[in-house]
Amino acid sequence: MSAKPDIRNYMKTLIPEVDRAMDRYLRTDIDIPPQLLEAMRYSVFAGGKRLRPVLVIAATEALGGQPTDVMPAACALEFIHTYSLIHDDLPVMDNDDYRRGKLTNHKVFGDAGAVLAGDALQALAFHALADSALPAPRVVQMVAELARASGPAGMVGGQSADIEHEGQPVSADGLAYIHRHKTGALITAAVRLGAIAQGADEGTLSQLTVYAQAIGLAFQIVDDLLDATGTEQLMGKTTGTDAKAGKATYPALFGVEQSQKMAMDLTEQAKSALLNAGGVVNREMLMAMADYLSLRDR
Amino acid sequence: MSAKPDIRNYMKTLIPEVDRAMDRYLRTDIDIPPQLLEAMRYSVFAGGKRLRPVLVIAATEALGGQPTDVMPAACALEFIHTYSLIHDDLPVMDNDDYRRGKLTNHKVFGDAGAVLAGDALQALAFHALADSALPAPRVVQMVAELARASGPAGMVGGQSADIEHEGQPVSADGLAYIHRHKTGALITAAVRLGAIAQGADEGTLSQLTVYAQAIGLAFQIVDDLLDATGTEQLMGKTTGTDAKAGKATYPALFGVEQSQKMAMDLTEQAKSALLNAGGVVNREMLMAMADYLSLRDR
Repeated sequence: MSAKPDIRNYMKTLIPEVDRAMDRYLRTDIDIPPQLLEAMRYSVFAGGKRLRPVLVIAATEALGGQPTDVMPAACALEFIHTYSLIHDDLPVMDNDDYRRGKLTNHKVFGDAGAVLAGDALQALAFHALADSALPAPRVVQMVAELARASGPAGMVGGQSADIEHEGQPVSADGLAYIHRHKTGALITAAVRLGAIAQGADEGTLSQLTVYAQAIGLAFQIVDDLLDATGTEQLMGKTTGTDAKAGKATYPALFGVEQSQKMAMDLTEQAKSALLNAGGVVNREMLMAMADYLSLRDR
Repeated sequence: MSAKPDIRNYMKTLIPEVDRAMDRYLRTDIDIPPQLLEAMRYSVFAGGKRLRPVLVIAATEALGGQPTDVMPAACALEFIHTYSLIHDDLPVMDNDDYRRGKLTNHKVFGDAGAVLAGDALQALAFHALADSALPAPRVVQMVAELARASGPAGMVGGQSADIEHEGQPVSADGLAYIHRHKTGALITAAVRLGAIAQGADEGTLSQLTVYAQAIGLAFQIVDDLLDATGTEQLMGKTTGTDAKAGKATYPALFGVEQSQKMAMDLTEQAKSALLNAGGVVNREMLMAMADYLSLRDR
């Protein structure tokens, strides 16, 4: 019997690798105007948790692959995630001044600079993915996956629904829609990209999708809980903003205790889907990841 | 000897086909929040010239291919072009109220809605491209091409340099950089995507790139000339805005007459590159396109 895998150690090992890979796409020797490159680098290297890249790699390793197989896809997802944060923080959107304990992109580079840095990171994501050394049919499938997950029927759809509902009463279904799309879509894409890279069959892909959707929703519920109950010092960003903005959240709709129970139930659901995923040869790290996401304190 | 090809007729035939194809990616039966879909459709169907899709198709036909081969790529380019216009018109960017004779996206859907509609169209572009029925290795190459051309080392780079230089004296080199990237990159990508779709060899691709860069720059010079000398009624947008914003333009830097000569010289340069492009079996329409772009009056 192997020892319980140390997810924090796993992330600590992978994060510098992911950062080095992202750095290679964001070098000053590339034909990018300096002020644009600086704005892109500012947010990419603002100390994110690199949760999505780690999930891509963990999913690929679960199917017997190597981190290097999916490093372009891991970077691509983090570029998409970063662009969405930059645009989300804009004054015309959530109007946030701080993110991860640092000034938001537009506070440093101006609103126009932040719009363009986000736009550029989205394009760079697809460039990174297309540069992948995997067989072309898999790369095409991965491009389609990332585009769908980050686009109007995915992440941007969730952001749009979120803004549309702001200050209005939201049903449990409405809230689930927002979260399943706004954060859930990219987390699901992370797991699916890692699996597609290894040529996972439909059955495996489908169980891994259930796993990913469950941990994605649990992640968001915990995020809501942390915003409601966490401190600014611990979170590195302004907390209590959801309540102030009259945003629909799980604790607002179901209360803190019930929300905590929902996150735990989802975690169990994720683990059970993982046990049913046929092609998985190595499930320990994905199991540990499910626990980590629902038990985190920041 | 064939009759001189009628470029206006060619475009008139293709534009409804391109519009129908774009409509299929933007249907209400897709899982997109209604207000987001409406904002995307508003700008996509705001009566653009569809110049880039037509160029993709003309380039593919020049190499013996069919319009259907590249319809996804044609749509993808128009989605990218449309997203860039939506973001460019934002108050924090160029702050334009009218585009193609209609209110700009943010005047109708709000600033947040316009940011998201643009973001969603960029993702949709890559989704469309990945959905292509062409051989996977070509699709991967096309994704890389579109991402590079529209990203930080392409179109967004040009927009960033443009904003950076606003109200400052710009050298001829600086102006060429801005235009080569801001508009030139997508026009070049249009021709290259059409050629890559047919598996064009490096030599052919390289001559077609020279052709495309020349017509792209000519197009922009004519655009500057029209902004300086055209009327609002004819252009369907606010004219004289460049001068008011203190923007660097060709007529401002070289005068109207010299700018006109530069556009004509570039057109000749484009045609001569086309004559040297080995793989081209059908050059008439691309020849006519070069003339059309430098002689247009709107």
